[in-house]
Amino acid sequence: MNTVELIKKKRDGKTFTNDEISFLINQFTKEKIPDYQFSALLMAILLKGMNPFETATLTDSMLNSGKVINLSSLKGYKVDKHSTGGVGDKTSLIIAPIVASAGIYVPMISGRGLGHTGGTLDKLESIPGFKTDLTLSESMRVLKKCGTVLIGQTKEIAPADKMIYALRDVTATVESIPLITASIMSKKLAEGIDGLVLDIKTGNGAFMKSQKDSIKLANSLIKTAKSFDKEVIAFITDMNQPLGNYIGNWLEVCESIKVLQGKVKNDLYVLSIKLAGAMIFLGKKAKTLQEGEKLAKQKIENGEAFKKFLEIVEFQRGKVNYINNPEKYPKSKFVQKIRSKKAGFFKEINTYQIGMASLELGAGRRTKDDVIDHKAGIIFYRKIGDYVKKGDLICELHSDSKSKIKSAEQIILESLKISNTKPTLPKLIKKVIR
Amino acid sequence: MNTVELIKKKRDGKTFTNDEISFLINQFTKEKIPDYQFSALLMAILLKGMNPFETATLTDSMLNSGKVINLSSLKGYKVDKHSTGGVGDKTSLIIAPIVASAGIYVPMISGRGLGHTGGTLDKLESIPGFKTDLTLSESMRVLKKCGTVLIGQTKEIAPADKMIYALRDVTATVESIPLITASIMSKKLAEGIDGLVLDIKTGNGAFMKSQKDSIKLANSLIKTAKSFDKEVIAFITDMNQPLGNYIGNWLEVCESIKVLQGKVKNDLYVLSIKLAGAMIFLGKKAKTLQEGEKLAKQKIENGEAFKKFLEIVEFQRGKVNYINNPEKYPKSKFVQKIRSKKAGFFKEINTYQIGMASLELGAGRRTKDDVIDHKAGIIFYRKIGDYVKKGDLICELHSDSKSKIKSAEQIILESLKISNTKPTLPKLIKKVIR
Repeated sequence: MNTVELIKKKRDGKTFTNDEISFLINQFTKEKIPDYQFSALLMAILLKGMNPFETATLTDSMLNSGKVINLSSLKGYKVDKHSTGGVGDKTSLIIAPIVASAGIYVPMISGRGLGHTGGTLDKLESIPGFKTDLTLSESMRVLKKCGTVLIGQTKEIAPADKMIYALRDVTATVESIPLITASIMSKKLAEGIDGLVLDIKTGNGAFMKSQKDSIKLANSLIKTAKSFDKEVIAFITDMNQPLGNYIGNWLEVCESIKVLQGKVKNDLYVLSIKLAGAMIFLGKKAKTLQEGEKLAKQKIENGEAFKKFLEIVEFQRGKVNYINNPEKYPKSKFVQKIRSKKAGFFKEINTYQIGMASLELGAGRRTKDDVIDHKAGIIFYRKIGDYVKKGDLICELHSDSKSKIKSAEQIILESLKISNTKPTLPKLIKKVIR
Repeated sequence: MNTVELIKKKRDGKTFTNDEISFLINQFTKEKIPDYQFSALLMAILLKGMNPFETATLTDSMLNSGKVINLSSLKGYKVDKHSTGGVGDKTSLIIAPIVASAGIYVPMISGRGLGHTGGTLDKLESIPGFKTDLTLSESMRVLKKCGTVLIGQTKEIAPADKMIYALRDVTATVESIPLITASIMSKKLAEGIDGLVLDIKTGNGAFMKSQKDSIKLANSLIKTAKSFDKEVIAFITDMNQPLGNYIGNWLEVCESIKVLQGKVKNDLYVLSIKLAGAMIFLGKKAKTLQEGEKLAKQKIENGEAFKKFLEIVEFQRGKVNYINNPEKYPKSKFVQKIRSKKAGFFKEINTYQIGMASLELGAGRRTKDDVIDHKAGIIFYRKIGDYVKKGDLICELHSDSKSKIKSAEQIILESLKISNTKPTLPKLIKKVIR
C-alpha cells in the first residue's frame, strides 16, 4: 500500500477499507510513516470525516497497537465511566467507590489535567502517598480485592493513541469526532470492560461547546462501543458552570469526601448518583436506571461508599488519615475572598475562564511539564440563577502566590455576568442516549 | 503568532492576513515550523482554498524567500512562457529561438521531467556538452548577447518553493490551485520578466484532466501575474494525445530542429507559432496576436530561428555539430516497430500511459534520482482521427533494453482505442484567456 495514495483517497472524501486503516496505524506506530505524512492524513480525516465502520476499525487498530487487559479471571461485571472533561468534574472519585461497593468491578484508567480542565490522576495524587502508576499485575490485585482500581494510562495501553494524540495536539487536528472517538474508545476497551457509561459535557466549559456536537460525539462513541459488543449509556450533561463548588486538586478531593459522607447534595451529588446508577444498572445489580440510582443513594447513606473510598486510598498507598481529617492537610499561604461589586442574578459564568483562573492559581498545567500545586484552587459559592447583594461572597481563591491571586481575581471578575432579571437555569442532565 | 492557531484558522475556512502568510512561509523556510505542522496546513489549504489576495501574498512570500533576478540593465522587453507540462511538449526549444530572433529577451528557467512528463532541462542536456547549470552572472552574459538563456532553477531562486514542493509531493497536497499558482509564479517572477505566456494543458496526458480545472488554474495564474503588474496571455491547449510525434529527450530535440528548419508543420508547429506569436505581441514587436504569429512564421521561413537555436547551443557549450547533423548522434541498441492489429480510426490515446511507456524505455524518471537514457523514447506516427489498416505502422520504440521494449509495447497497445467510426477531432487550442 502507498501512503500518498491513501492520503489522497481520504482527501478526496473516499472510504478506507479495514486493511488500509490497519496499515496506516501499524506503519505509523512503527515509525515507518513519517509525522509529516500522518498529519496531512489527520487533517484530511478531520475535514472529510470517517463513517462508523471506519471509526470502529480505527479504534480497533489503535486498541491492538498495545496490550488489552484480560479480566476474564474476575467473575462479575466490569464497568467504567468516561467523561469528556470540564471544570470541577470530580465524579470519578465518587462513582468508583459507590459502584464497587455495589459489587461491580470498576477498572478505571484516567488522565491528567491540561489547560482549563483538571485530571482524575492529579486529584488522586493530591492525597499524600497515593500511587496511580501501579504495574498491571499490582492493579489486577487491587481490582480483585477492592473491586476498583484507579490508575493512569501505561505505556502498554494503546501506544498508537499516545503518538497520534501528540501529533493532533500540535497540528490543529484535535476537534474531529472520529479521531476523538477512537482515542477514547481504544483506551477504554483496553481496560477489559463489559459496559461503559459516558458523560459528554456540553457548554462553555466543555470541549464540545454545542449540544449538537455533543450528541454527535455521543452517538459516535455509542456506535463504536456497540460494534465491540459493549453495553453503553451516554448522558449529555451541562458544563456552563463548574460542577460542584470546589475546583483544584485537593479541594476537589475534599468535596468528594463530603458527597461520599452524605453531607452535600449539590449538582455534583445529583450527577454522581445518575452516572453511578447507570453503571449499577449495566452491572445487573438493578432492574432499571431509577433502581440503580436508588441503590447508589443507599450506598452513600449507609456509609459503604465512603468506607470503600478509604479502602481504595489504603490499597493505593495513600495516607487515609488525611481523608478522615482533611483539616490536617497543608493550607495555601493566601486565601482571598472575592465579593460581588453589584447586586443581581448570576446570569452567565465563562466556565472555561474559571478553569483558567484555577490553572493560574497553580492548580493546573499550561504544558505537560508544568508542576501542580495540589492545595491551590477555587471554592466557588454561586450557581447560575443565584441572587447576590453587593458585597456578598462569590468565591475564595487559594494560592501560595499573591500575584497569581491578583491575576486570577481579574480573570474571574471578567468571566461573570450579573443581571437584573432571573435567567433560565441550565438543565444539568440534558439527554440520555442508549 | 501561533502556528497551531493559524492551521486552525485555515482548517475552519477563514482567510489569512498578509502578515500571517509571510510569517508561515518565513518560519517554514527557516525550519522553525516543522514539516508535520506545515503539511497539515497544506492539506487545509488544499481542502479549504485561498482567495486571489491570499494566493498573491503566498506567491510574494515564496518569491522573496530567495533572489529576484534584476534585468533592469537590459533595455528591452523580457518575456517567458510556462507550460503545465504534458507528453511530447517541446515548445520551449522552438519558441525561445523564434522570440529571441525577433529582438525580445527570453530568460527561461525550466525544470526536469518526473513521472509521465518530460522536462526541458533533460531535453537540452541530451545535446552533448549543453550546460543548463550556468551561474547567474554567466546566464546574464548569455541572455544579453544571445537574447535568451535556458537554465534550471538555482538554489537562490524561491527556495521556499523547493521546500514546499518536496513536502507536497509526499503528502498528497499537489493538486491545489492556489499552491500550484504560487509555485509557478514565484519562480517565473524571480526571472525578472515583464510578460508571460501560459500554456495550460488539459486532457488525459495533462496534470489538469478537465477543461474546467484548467480554466480555473489559468484564471488564478492570470490574476496573480496581474497583481504583480505583469502582462499575461493564457492558452488552454489539448493534451489528449502527445504533442508532435517524438517523445524522449534527444528525439524531441530532433523534432524541434525539423520544426525550426521549416520541415515539419504538425500540431507542434501550430502551437509553437501560437505561443511565440503571443510572446512577440506582448513584447510589442507586433500589433495583434495574428501579426505576432505571422512574424513567428517568418522567423522560421527565413532561417533566423534555427540560426538562433544554433547560437543558443553554442553559447551554452553544446556541440553544434549534432544539431547540424542529428544522424551522427548515438542510436539506441533496439528499435522496434509497432503495427496495428486491426483496421479502424484512432479514437482515443491514453496519453498518460504513452508518457509512462516512454519512461519505461529509459527516457524518464520514476524518482528524482533515476538516470535518463537520452536516446530512448517513442516516435508516434498517428494522431486521433487517423485511419490505419491492419499491419500499418503505429509507432517506433527506441531503447537499449529489449525487455523494456516489450513492457513498453504492452503499455502502448493497452492505451490505444481503434474504432470503426471516425471520432470528432480534439481542438488543439481550446481557449485564449487574457
